[in-house]
Amino acid sequence: MPDKKSHIPWAKPDFWGNEIQYVSEALASTWISGGAYLDKLEKQFSETFQKKYALAVSNGTTAIHLAYLGLGLKPGDEIIVPGFAFMAAANIALHMGLKPVFAEVDKDTWCLSARELPKYISSKTKAIVPIHTYGNVCEMDAIMKVADAHKIPVIEDCAESLFSKYKGKYSGTFGKINTFSFQATKTITTGEGGLVVTDSDELNEKMMLYRSHGMRRKDKFYWHELPGHNFRLTNMQAALGVAQLEKIDFILSERKRVYEEYKKHIANQEDVVLQKIEKDVDPVIWAVALKLNSKTFPQGRDKVIEQLRETGIETRPGFYASSLLKIYQQHSLPVCEDISKNVISLPSFPSLKNDDIVFICEQLLKLKNR
Amino acid sequence: MPDKKSHIPWAKPDFWGNEIQYVSEALASTWISGGAYLDKLEKQFSETFQKKYALAVSNGTTAIHLAYLGLGLKPGDEIIVPGFAFMAAANIALHMGLKPVFAEVDKDTWCLSARELPKYISSKTKAIVPIHTYGNVCEMDAIMKVADAHKIPVIEDCAESLFSKYKGKYSGTFGKINTFSFQATKTITTGEGGLVVTDSDELNEKMMLYRSHGMRRKDKFYWHELPGHNFRLTNMQAALGVAQLEKIDFILSERKRVYEEYKKHIANQEDVVLQKIEKDVDPVIWAVALKLNSKTFPQGRDKVIEQLRETGIETRPGFYASSLLKIYQQHSLPVCEDISKNVISLPSFPSLKNDDIVFICEQLLKLKNR
Repeated sequence: MPDKKSHIPWAKPDFWGNEIQYVSEALASTWISGGAYLDKLEKQFSETFQKKYALAVSNGTTAIHLAYLGLGLKPGDEIIVPGFAFMAAANIALHMGLKPVFAEVDKDTWCLSARELPKYISSKTKAIVPIHTYGNVCEMDAIMKVADAHKIPVIEDCAESLFSKYKGKYSGTFGKINTFSFQATKTITTGEGGLVVTDSDELNEKMMLYRSHGMRRKDKFYWHELPGHNFRLTNMQAALGVAQLEKIDFILSERKRVYEEYKKHIANQEDVVLQKIEKDVDPVIWAVALKLNSKTFPQGRDKVIEQLRETGIETRPGFYASSLLKIYQQHSLPVCEDISKNVISLPSFPSLKNDDIVFICEQLLKLKNR
Repeated sequence: MPDKKSHIPWAKPDFWGNEIQYVSEALASTWISGGAYLDKLEKQFSETFQKKYALAVSNGTTAIHLAYLGLGLKPGDEIIVPGFAFMAAANIALHMGLKPVFAEVDKDTWCLSARELPKYISSKTKAIVPIHTYGNVCEMDAIMKVADAHKIPVIEDCAESLFSKYKGKYSGTFGKINTFSFQATKTITTGEGGLVVTDSDELNEKMMLYRSHGMRRKDKFYWHELPGHNFRLTNMQAALGVAQLEKIDFILSERKRVYEEYKKHIANQEDVVLQKIEKDVDPVIWAVALKLNSKTFPQGRDKVIEQLRETGIETRPGFYASSLLKIYQQHSLPVCEDISKNVISLPSFPSLKNDDIVFICEQLLKLKNR
């Protein structure tokens, strides 16, 4: 929490309605692990995303882990992930002995580029994981075309793009399995939480088992049908999510207001270039992010972050490109690296005031040539 | 929850004091992910177990996963686990490409037997995982002696033995890393939750990183120092745990009352033999479990469970022995199998009334030769 009045945090979870009431109800029911709110949350996602199955899980990372387990990925298999993104999908690959193959992203949208994709595909490629970074959506039609031609399943990582749309359809409706996150900074939060959706009976069945020790608990208690993990979300956390979904129209309109206000003050500049959103995309921006022109900001992005911190504004750097992280030791990706070094993301939470946004933009633009 | 008056569930989470208040406070603080209750929970465990570090995690299974990652276990490594126990430790081994080597247990205590241990040790053995089943504690002195002689680290799985003691010391104070569970049926619950303790600076450092994406979040935001997972517990859940710890003396005395009441009615019989607790052990029994004499219960354990269900009493079978589970395909373990087939565990939650216990014992003993 901000301890100084002038402090503008990068993110701030907000409650909008029945959160405390529903959590208290979940507790009072003593159904604190499984329970009615979990069922409700899953049902609402299944309906909204028009997917046959929705499985709530403990976080967005375990959602990805569950998707890989569902697909039966095995050590030595390759998955393709973008070289610029939050690296949960790549890290879980390493956990399972898979090889994450990092693909170049589009220099403007910062998302996986379908054009680049074929050159990373091999006979070992067992999944393609587009990541909808910052709330933008990858060019899913083109990506699905490549994936389908090679018969490779797609897992959309929608941790940052809940309710963003591509050609009128939600992100998370294109892939074979798609994953979401309800982490504290996300559009809907359950503290920590996540969810997977799929239309496949077989994948749902396997993922349901992997989520909870491989056990069905009905006839043969303690019978591990497969070596399951524990990726369960609690009913108490689901209660939070259900309360927030009731206010989703308001939350989304406030997120859109924040994004539009930023655009008013920093769009169409050469010095600070916002992440490009293609016309096919109607985004719910998780984090307003822009690329600093290294000529007008010769001090460099990290210094700008520091300078903004001195004025009470908390920002975040872009993700490290895969090629800059020692744990992967892979080929260089010039576009990813350029974005990685020059991107900064700004406070973007839905209760951020327009005045604060004006202040943030002013302070940022003041830092040119400093 | 029971829907009929006569129904006695196997487990029932109860709240004893400030649970709803603290959870509401955690929510109101909007520190729903990290926060003060998490710090408090970890501090209390670290102090109570006199371990330098305590790390709260999302559940008892991720606690074990974190311990294996902390020790740097690699595909091909072997770990020794008991062949009769809840199989989380074995299943996580399979997730990491480790080989779980199943050891015979003691026929009376149903816990890992130090005498048997040496024959399962090979040059590939990288950890020994005693599991303190049902709240009993393994013979830790003898086990540590074998482990130390071979320089193999021990991970105590205390998911079922929180606050049980061996020779005056808590289970979870003997191994290099020790794991706990706060799942809904456990002595302390956070809905889902877990914790690891260790004295090692190095292991703590690594486990802290693995718990949260391998990131430190201080200087280099989004720098993945190692391929971390997400095993974080929420502040909201920790608030539940802190509230319950305030009432721990009462909770433990009620668990002891339940166990003593059962002993009054079913101890010292040949037909139903309670899990043996050695004199070195002062247990907090998670589940009162007993072995049915197959001569006096010719209908078999599974039929007894069914017959008890008809009288409104919910019970559980013993765990499947590793040798009976297809996912492991290993050597037979006669003692484990015998326990597995004949053990039944009875309702044992702390708010269970003495009258109910009398009823349960009566109903069970009525089933002899039926």
